[in-house]
Amino acid sequence: MDFRRVFSILSFLLLCLSGTLLLPMGVSYLYGEPETKAFFYSFLICGFTGLAGYLLFRSDTKEISHREGFAIVGLGWVIVCLMGSVPFLLAGTFPNFLDALFESSSGFTTTGATVLDDIEILPKGILFWRSLTHWLGGMGIILFSMAILPMLGVGGMQLYRAEVPGPVPDRLKPRIRETAKTLWIVYLLISVVEALLLWIGGMSLFDSVCHTFGTMATGGFSTRNGSIGSYGSAYFDWVITVFMMIAGANFALHYLFLKGRSRRYYQDPEFRFYLFTILGVTLVMTLLLRSGTYTSWSLSLRDSVFQVVSILTTTGYTTADYEQWSLAAQFILFALMFFGGCAGSTGGSIKCIRILLLLKHAYREIYHLIHPHAISTIKLGKKSVPANVMDSVLAFFLLYMGIFFVATLLLSLLGLDFQSAMSAVAASIGNVGPGLGAVGPTHTYAAIVPAGKWILIACMLLGRLELFTLLVLLLPEFWKK
Amino acid sequence: MDFRRVFSILSFLLLCLSGTLLLPMGVSYLYGEPETKAFFYSFLICGFTGLAGYLLFRSDTKEISHREGFAIVGLGWVIVCLMGSVPFLLAGTFPNFLDALFESSSGFTTTGATVLDDIEILPKGILFWRSLTHWLGGMGIILFSMAILPMLGVGGMQLYRAEVPGPVPDRLKPRIRETAKTLWIVYLLISVVEALLLWIGGMSLFDSVCHTFGTMATGGFSTRNGSIGSYGSAYFDWVITVFMMIAGANFALHYLFLKGRSRRYYQDPEFRFYLFTILGVTLVMTLLLRSGTYTSWSLSLRDSVFQVVSILTTTGYTTADYEQWSLAAQFILFALMFFGGCAGSTGGSIKCIRILLLLKHAYREIYHLIHPHAISTIKLGKKSVPANVMDSVLAFFLLYMGIFFVATLLLSLLGLDFQSAMSAVAASIGNVGPGLGAVGPTHTYAAIVPAGKWILIACMLLGRLELFTLLVLLLPEFWKK
Repeated sequence: MDFRRVFSILSFLLLCLSGTLLLPMGVSYLYGEPETKAFFYSFLICGFTGLAGYLLFRSDTKEISHREGFAIVGLGWVIVCLMGSVPFLLAGTFPNFLDALFESSSGFTTTGATVLDDIEILPKGILFWRSLTHWLGGMGIILFSMAILPMLGVGGMQLYRAEVPGPVPDRLKPRIRETAKTLWIVYLLISVVEALLLWIGGMSLFDSVCHTFGTMATGGFSTRNGSIGSYGSAYFDWVITVFMMIAGANFALHYLFLKGRSRRYYQDPEFRFYLFTILGVTLVMTLLLRSGTYTSWSLSLRDSVFQVVSILTTTGYTTADYEQWSLAAQFILFALMFFGGCAGSTGGSIKCIRILLLLKHAYREIYHLIHPHAISTIKLGKKSVPANVMDSVLAFFLLYMGIFFVATLLLSLLGLDFQSAMSAVAASIGNVGPGLGAVGPTHTYAAIVPAGKWILIACMLLGRLELFTLLVLLLPEFWKK
Repeated sequence: MDFRRVFSILSFLLLCLSGTLLLPMGVSYLYGEPETKAFFYSFLICGFTGLAGYLLFRSDTKEISHREGFAIVGLGWVIVCLMGSVPFLLAGTFPNFLDALFESSSGFTTTGATVLDDIEILPKGILFWRSLTHWLGGMGIILFSMAILPMLGVGGMQLYRAEVPGPVPDRLKPRIRETAKTLWIVYLLISVVEALLLWIGGMSLFDSVCHTFGTMATGGFSTRNGSIGSYGSAYFDWVITVFMMIAGANFALHYLFLKGRSRRYYQDPEFRFYLFTILGVTLVMTLLLRSGTYTSWSLSLRDSVFQVVSILTTTGYTTADYEQWSLAAQFILFALMFFGGCAGSTGGSIKCIRILLLLKHAYREIYHLIHPHAISTIKLGKKSVPANVMDSVLAFFLLYMGIFFVATLLLSLLGLDFQSAMSAVAASIGNVGPGLGAVGPTHTYAAIVPAGKWILIACMLLGRLELFTLLVLLLPEFWKK
């Protein structure tokens, strides 16, 4: 492991992060808020740390090995979450470091779980920074999932090795640079369109931008205590529903669409699965709501599709207090927390491609029992899925369920009831945000005891980094020569 | 598919079952109960149906194909559960067919979930029949898991193809006969020892036999409303704990032990995993109880080990109302419902061997990330586990979790809360018996709505027949020529 190289890149990351801190500083300045100072000091701290590290660890090595890749991604996310909490601390938004770290981690992992009971009293600069952490986290995750994961071969994502725009070399670096450029432009373009649509619809420019950040990153931080539901606007609901669906789809497909190859959406088996799951579950949910407390079909559909898309894509915006829904409706939302959007999107959780492959694996086994001598491979569209990809996907699912169980057990040790503990963990490891019970849509994570918050921060990071990327760092063997 | 052959064997099964009905008839007669008649009529119905079918479908084919094997096992269990409900109906134990079928299915699948709120008012003959269904189900499952599953290659159990006593031919029939003889003798011997130990300790002979049936089959039907806890006897608790552990271990190991090869226990990786899991979880549980409401270390240990072994082996006897325990303790018990004993035991659920292999699979994937070019196979003791076995085990786990989710969703649609729905399904598909909440140790399944009982009966059968055996029967392709 070339530590110089790792630290050099991590320092560069901090330099970039310090630049982004000028944005909320500008917002604070425009609104004449005293927090301008807090952001300026944060900019200095982050910038000097980055610069010092960059000069100290300057390295001429161009190549990045597998192990260095893991170390950079895993440590990088942790460092960014830590540094992201500095403005919160300097501005005095939170009473302690843990809460600031929770909010920052929830932001950069695009989870959207908050420990703030009243968001609307916050200064604009702080609100902007919260939302910006989402958007930056989203940029990070697009890069991570489209360029780095396929190369590292994590959780079956080697499947996407050849499907990403840009050159396909064996070394990590040139690929990362090209992919980043291409996809970030797509990400930026779609973001601009959403913000404009919200603004034209009558949302303030500030709220439009913040909610765009939260949507495109499938994050979920809002500037309102009542999330999107507080506007009570069908237009905003539908616009954000559509853009959550876009953010939950593979950005490589959006790139191809912008290049005129729109048929690729339908040709992609994962996108089809994603779309039909949303349609199917929305249909069931609409029927459930209409046969329950809802009196109007159109409102049943609007609230169903918003909540289904929001939870499935792991965004976490809400327009209804789904804790008032029937138990079955709540259980469906809970189950959706394990879905997540497509690979190459900003969504978290298990993701559609893996669930599709898991279903195919289970079906193949039943088929084998009837035809014991048939040799059948698992196909995705017209291509066969290699056995090592299936192994990775299955291991990912096992680890996901294992961590879910262990973390739920730990939270129940801390006194959380069944439903709250399970949904808090599912919402954290899946980067969703709101859960059920004590962490439901009308509650926050503020009441969770400190040890519980640490566990949930770990879950957010594990989920966001596709488990393996963080887990390998914990093995002593990883650090050996 | 040779339907004549299938029906001929199913008819033979009914003939055997009719013979066993003479036992509860004898008990009823000895106690001078009017239910003697009900058993006699049941004997006639079952016997004549079997005889008629046997004469009608007489078949000279000696061989049984894969498909016929599935059909015989799947349909056989269903028919036995149906016929087992006849005495309950004729004796008027239950107000309707569904409840009688639930109790009979719970018996033959060795689940032990009951819809009877007051067991102690029942006639001895009926109590005996309830417990006997367990013991017969246990005989069935030993045969099924040691002789039939390895041949059919279900859920990774092809691993045991060469490990079973008796000849190892390619055809099913001779193997089944030999294995049955050998292992049933072991099963009978251990049962006699347990019944004697309970009787010597002061339990009535009747209760000793009934509780032995429930223990050896990892069933859980008791003759007391308060289960084993109603005796308040440390001796009974420990005897039953030990015999639950024996019943949850591989009967092929017991057979080898009786032949003097006692070291095979420790040489078996699954048995080691089973033992250390029990020890580890009991330790944690004892600490949890002692730091909670319990004031004595010895009672904490006694109640911990009993409940842990009972749930882990999927027996379901209770000596404590664990709903009064801390949430973490309850969650551990809930998680244990997904364990189950060893393969080749009478226990249900996922089973230790699969969980061990799943853990190894997940670990190997992490190892691969550090050593991307290493070729590593999964080992069990000194032997490599073939890839197709791993595929089956993984598919089993996927299906198990999938069915768990779907059934929980259906129960929540029927109005059950999160915890009750989840634990009712986990306790049914795992053949455990009692769950948590509305189906906890001080409650029964009586209050569940009819549709819910049907779902749980399906879960019991699916779990008991290792999912695949029943699922293949539902595929249209299975029945094609």
